[in-house]
Amino acid sequence: MKIITTIKEMQAIIAAQKSQEKSIGFVPTMGFLHEGHLTLLNRARQENDLVVLSIFVNPLQFGPKEDYAEYPRDFERDRALAEGEKVDFLFYPAVEEMYPHELSVKVTVQDRTDVLCGKSRPGHFDGVATVITKFFNIISPTRAYFGKKDAQQVAVIEGLISDFNMPVDLVAVDIVRENDGLAKSSRNVNLLPQERQVAPVLYQSLQAAEAALHEGEQNPIKLIEMIREMINKETNGEIDYVQIYSYPQLKPLEKLEGTIIIALAVKFTKVRLIDNTITNID
Amino acid sequence: MKIITTIKEMQAIIAAQKSQEKSIGFVPTMGFLHEGHLTLLNRARQENDLVVLSIFVNPLQFGPKEDYAEYPRDFERDRALAEGEKVDFLFYPAVEEMYPHELSVKVTVQDRTDVLCGKSRPGHFDGVATVITKFFNIISPTRAYFGKKDAQQVAVIEGLISDFNMPVDLVAVDIVRENDGLAKSSRNVNLLPQERQVAPVLYQSLQAAEAALHEGEQNPIKLIEMIREMINKETNGEIDYVQIYSYPQLKPLEKLEGTIIIALAVKFTKVRLIDNTITNID
Repeated sequence: MKIITTIKEMQAIIAAQKSQEKSIGFVPTMGFLHEGHLTLLNRARQENDLVVLSIFVNPLQFGPKEDYAEYPRDFERDRALAEGEKVDFLFYPAVEEMYPHELSVKVTVQDRTDVLCGKSRPGHFDGVATVITKFFNIISPTRAYFGKKDAQQVAVIEGLISDFNMPVDLVAVDIVRENDGLAKSSRNVNLLPQERQVAPVLYQSLQAAEAALHEGEQNPIKLIEMIREMINKETNGEIDYVQIYSYPQLKPLEKLEGTIIIALAVKFTKVRLIDNTITNID
Repeated sequence: MKIITTIKEMQAIIAAQKSQEKSIGFVPTMGFLHEGHLTLLNRARQENDLVVLSIFVNPLQFGPKEDYAEYPRDFERDRALAEGEKVDFLFYPAVEEMYPHELSVKVTVQDRTDVLCGKSRPGHFDGVATVITKFFNIISPTRAYFGKKDAQQVAVIEGLISDFNMPVDLVAVDIVRENDGLAKSSRNVNLLPQERQVAPVLYQSLQAAEAALHEGEQNPIKLIEMIREMINKETNGEIDYVQIYSYPQLKPLEKLEGTIIIALAVKFTKVRLIDNTITNID
């Protein structure tokens, strides 16, 4: 595995590989890799000649009151994990390399951001879309891998690729879950023991709503109420949101049909968890 | 010359050509080609294996009070001129092909736009940068050709390519002039005969200021005054602006050094003309 820190070297390597018609699988991350990331790398490894992993904690996607400085970083651990997944190139630029001066341009996301987590994070998805645009231009991936856990991020990137006609295939990878159904996350370690025990109800409630949907329940308010009741009965967590939208458009639905996302966020004592399910109703 | 109207077909052709390592010269236009465009095509023809010309009157870069509907169009004439310049692919998409629905993302230009022509055209350069981003993703040019007559557009595109790390070489082509120095423009035909006769003073005033600059004149106000006096003495045109900035940053300069643009816009009876000169002061 080769570690690259400059854009110039990364672009030169990519140009050389592309001229040999190598397919490139790209997994963008902020590092501190967990099993979700490894699943993305594994999938990229299976489907491409080359795998490029980026590790970059992108200041542009953090709000002024958010935890940019405190975001966990452990490069040596990440490097070992990446080698274990047979990554070919680890792109690890410094902030000054990615943003040598104020940008004269940025990507503005004008849709899909006023719901779910985006509602409370103004500018977050502009920062995500801007850095992903830069990465796509640097790495020219054949396929880019994102986890469905961040379903709104996947929706925004889908819009970015589609509306800007980027020649990249978006691969959205299913959520990896613990045996009891809890979606894997680095943050799960911050659940109190009793909270960890009951946390699988988040996914159970999504499954129950999905089952009711497929059995013909057409009223989103009833489905949302069902989820809220299950979570409130089993946990002391504070529900941030439970929402149902079209996917990836993230628009409210008068009639529940097509591709639908049911998504939730719940605050526990020391950690806020998100989960979702995406399903098709014909 | 092949005429392509769909993004999908254009991208498929480009992918096939790229896999043969063909270099691609791209000239984006809004059609109604004039000698300036032909100069760009000629240069692209000399420097690349393939030449792609796009003709697309981009609604996104016209303000609500601007002349999108009235913008001149003559596809048959353009097609003949393009064939004369040995263009390989003429990309000619309909508005619905480029914008099938409201875009979920756009490029916002946050610098270099609050001066010169951009000052009076809010949103114009966002529309330019957005459509150029789409074209670059569709056509993957090795080199993209723009005329220095629209020096602010070149500066914005330079920022777009540089800040988004687009793997494209920007080629800024010198202004083509009539024998008497007047910058060529489709709009020159709208000058009254007497105006046409004195219009070369625009370029003469730029040359005089440039000469004074190289002879050591350090005061931008004096240079601007020199230009204004020459224009006011020779013409009845109304000066819209005469400005001096760093280039391509388009920032006011305390000390006149580095690369500098002297730019002007003058309103005549039926037409507004722009001209500029870009020069280096060590």
